[in-house]
Amino acid sequence: MAFFSSDIRTIDDLFVNTLRDIYYAEKQILEALPEMIGKAGSRPLRRVLQAHLKEGRDHLKRLEQVFRLHGAKPKHVECPAIDGLLEEAIDIDGKMPNKRVIDSALIAAAHAIENFEIARYRTLVAWAKELGRDDCASVLQQILEDETAIDRKLGVVSGSKSR
Amino acid sequence: MAFFSSDIRTIDDLFVNTLRDIYYAEKQILEALPEMIGKAGSRPLRRVLQAHLKEGRDHLKRLEQVFRLHGAKPKHVECPAIDGLLEEAIDIDGKMPNKRVIDSALIAAAHAIENFEIARYRTLVAWAKELGRDDCASVLQQILEDETAIDRKLGVVSGSKSR
Repeated sequence: MAFFSSDIRTIDDLFVNTLRDIYYAEKQILEALPEMIGKAGSRPLRRVLQAHLKEGRDHLKRLEQVFRLHGAKPKHVECPAIDGLLEEAIDIDGKMPNKRVIDSALIAAAHAIENFEIARYRTLVAWAKELGRDDCASVLQQILEDETAIDRKLGVVSGSKSR
Repeated sequence: MAFFSSDIRTIDDLFVNTLRDIYYAEKQILEALPEMIGKAGSRPLRRVLQAHLKEGRDHLKRLEQVFRLHGAKPKHVECPAIDGLLEEAIDIDGKMPNKRVIDSALIAAAHAIENFEIARYRTLVAWAKELGRDDCASVLQQILEDETAIDRKLGVVSGSKSR
């Protein structure tokens, strides 16, 4: 099963399946972040990635809350998009001598990951509202705002390196 | 070779490699869009996807211009992120009876693709400026603005379906 599977018939099916897709994505991001933090050369970048890690754990709990509110099981579905995005971050060679190049590559990879999450949460908020689930929409909106804030902080970190 | 490869040593290497990554991504998107257009049920969505297809062809030419300005060869590097994102769009079953569900899934997939492109072009504009290549930054900024406009149009289309 992935983002779109053969048993999807309604917006509700699409909503639940996409919740499972981002639930998987958030878990994969949590697994990848410690390696990204380990490669980061600058303290401000490490701090932003550490904040992302901390918030990611909280987002998993909030997603479980949305599953409960909606009466759906918190399962995973495959998400080849996040697998591809994380492959980029993992591929960055943390042992090369030029730490500025490593940090620039890490920031670029992290921006792409954040933008993916932002696209998903925007979609989920819209579908929750369409389904009349303002309770779910409200929780998802909070996560969306956290992700947007992390993306802004990444921009500040890259700016502080005169990018 | 992918987003980060073993021969990257400088921001210039990173810039050229990421140009090649988005050059590959734009070509893959151009290949996938006719299938997405074929599945779209509503005319406004088809129009936005058709505009994306038209602009995508133009973006390839502008990327080739950036390669020329920077004295680099317009080659491809693998981009597992766009491969994963397009897999989602291709997986959407265009034969299911509920066209509204198909369109909602297509809009969600297209938003994720646009957000990926926006992240890449923002990064490329920043790196071009860091390298003192305002000529390249200017062309990349124009593409970034087109991508942002397409993303906004997708939002309008989804809004017109009361999402």
